[in-house]
Amino acid sequence: MLSTGDLDQWASEIRSGNRVSLGKAITLVESRLPEHRLRADQLIEKISHSSAHARRIAITGVPGVGKSSFIEAFGLKLIRDFNQSVAVLAIDPSSTVSGGSILGDKTRMEALSKEKSAFIRPSPSGGHLGGVAERTMHTIMLCEAAGFDYILIETVGVGQSETEIRHMADLFLLLMLPGAGDELQGIKRGIIEMTDLMVLNKSDGNTASLAEDAVRQYSNALHFFPGRDDGWLPKVLKHSIFQPESTALVMIAVNQYFDFMAEGQKLGKMRAEQKVWWFREQVRRIWLERLYTKDGFNHQLDNLSNQILQGDLNPFQAARSLLEKVK
Amino acid sequence: MLSTGDLDQWASEIRSGNRVSLGKAITLVESRLPEHRLRADQLIEKISHSSAHARRIAITGVPGVGKSSFIEAFGLKLIRDFNQSVAVLAIDPSSTVSGGSILGDKTRMEALSKEKSAFIRPSPSGGHLGGVAERTMHTIMLCEAAGFDYILIETVGVGQSETEIRHMADLFLLLMLPGAGDELQGIKRGIIEMTDLMVLNKSDGNTASLAEDAVRQYSNALHFFPGRDDGWLPKVLKHSIFQPESTALVMIAVNQYFDFMAEGQKLGKMRAEQKVWWFREQVRRIWLERLYTKDGFNHQLDNLSNQILQGDLNPFQAARSLLEKVK
Repeated sequence: MLSTGDLDQWASEIRSGNRVSLGKAITLVESRLPEHRLRADQLIEKISHSSAHARRIAITGVPGVGKSSFIEAFGLKLIRDFNQSVAVLAIDPSSTVSGGSILGDKTRMEALSKEKSAFIRPSPSGGHLGGVAERTMHTIMLCEAAGFDYILIETVGVGQSETEIRHMADLFLLLMLPGAGDELQGIKRGIIEMTDLMVLNKSDGNTASLAEDAVRQYSNALHFFPGRDDGWLPKVLKHSIFQPESTALVMIAVNQYFDFMAEGQKLGKMRAEQKVWWFREQVRRIWLERLYTKDGFNHQLDNLSNQILQGDLNPFQAARSLLEKVK
Repeated sequence: MLSTGDLDQWASEIRSGNRVSLGKAITLVESRLPEHRLRADQLIEKISHSSAHARRIAITGVPGVGKSSFIEAFGLKLIRDFNQSVAVLAIDPSSTVSGGSILGDKTRMEALSKEKSAFIRPSPSGGHLGGVAERTMHTIMLCEAAGFDYILIETVGVGQSETEIRHMADLFLLLMLPGAGDELQGIKRGIIEMTDLMVLNKSDGNTASLAEDAVRQYSNALHFFPGRDDGWLPKVLKHSIFQPESTALVMIAVNQYFDFMAEGQKLGKMRAEQKVWWFREQVRRIWLERLYTKDGFNHQLDNLSNQILQGDLNPFQAARSLLEKVK
């Protein structure tokens, strides 16, 4: 067992950028053992008053869009041309279902993983999404305390979790493939509307001219949809890992975004609001979990849903009478 | 007190289209007295096995877009040219806050209200949104049982409630003003993505050419956004109450939609799924209400939210410790 003294030591090692200590802390945060959870909370408490401020960028897109190679190109650009340090976190809530994990990432991002200023951490496996969210937020805080300049959060485009990712990140970057229509099918409704920066990836060779069209069309399209309350207008860019200047243009757009967010402390306000969102969301989630984990409750819920599907029950009455039985 | 016998009588009067009985039933459904609620449930139970099928159309848009005059023109077209009967329901959840109601509607829809085949019912005042939703759904069922061919549900474009309205209606019609950009500010994110039919209203006089552009641009824009799972492609039309042929074109698009939804029983499936959605939504809502109505709970929630805003608290820990105190 680690004493409080050890936790202070640990926290200061993390703050000094010690990778081994950081890695262990993330493992602790990802653990679901109650005693680990308590210690994780104490550790997070200790590092949470750090004044460090990383840029948190969520990067999402359907499988095959080239997330890993984009992150590698972007990460290398940050490190080699801008002397920044980069942490890459991968979230894959679907791994709960498949039992899989993103072990392949380290190999896929081979050049990036060899950089001293890069830190790549695959997905915490298993657990419900709420748990993943909490662990990811704490992992972000740990990486931030360790002094990383950029935290890139890679997510698979699965819909449900994107709202949560949006509340973890400063910037939401959506990767798309050029050639409109069919490719969109993998993108869930609501995703595009939370996008700050859309990048048409793999814009090279045969798709180069398609990408030009797509940039123009998406730019026009986004113009016709409700924007963010703070006035940021989403940008659309094309990108190819074979064209370093396209990565540089993404970098410029990212800087424009953070410059915009720095005015009038928009970023600080956004982060504070995100925290409150998480608080209220967790309150709801924990309370609902108490209901859904009651013995046989889910079974009853499914049963009644089926009866409603058959047209036999009034949904409002069914809800009331189901809950009257729960004390 | 009404006996069960009276309820049978009442239900059969509603089914025969008796307006006075229908009006009284809606008043009962809107009542929040517990004994009324019980009787309302019984009455709804009796009419819910009706085989009638009205077309339920939600009509929304920001204030000033001309919802009432559009509904009047559309309703009169349905009645006079297509021999249909029309019920108009107005939902205004904001009336909870303002204490106001939409009494003006009857006068605004003067010509429509004089038609024998029209039935106009203003918003039920007050109550939380969940209650409004339940009452609206039951009012829809009552109007359906009374044999109306069309039920037009007018809502103010307030965001939160639109997801619920989407789950009450077969078709979601969004009214917009021609002239892009500024006017959009009143439309909340996510609304456009749930739209089946977008109508650029007040397309006459000076705005006629603006409307032409807007129709083309929105049609293009919608093409670049994720569509509905069932494959319906949202349509964009222009409309002016001074151009009866534009109302006829809206009518044609509405018919196309319902023809599309009739194939493969898409409409029946959608309605069944909507019912299950309401059931699960109500379960969540009632359960959360138990939490939020606990003595002093909202006060604690606001208190902690403020501390989090000041940066003093970890939102996840705050949520856990708050709920540990709730049994």
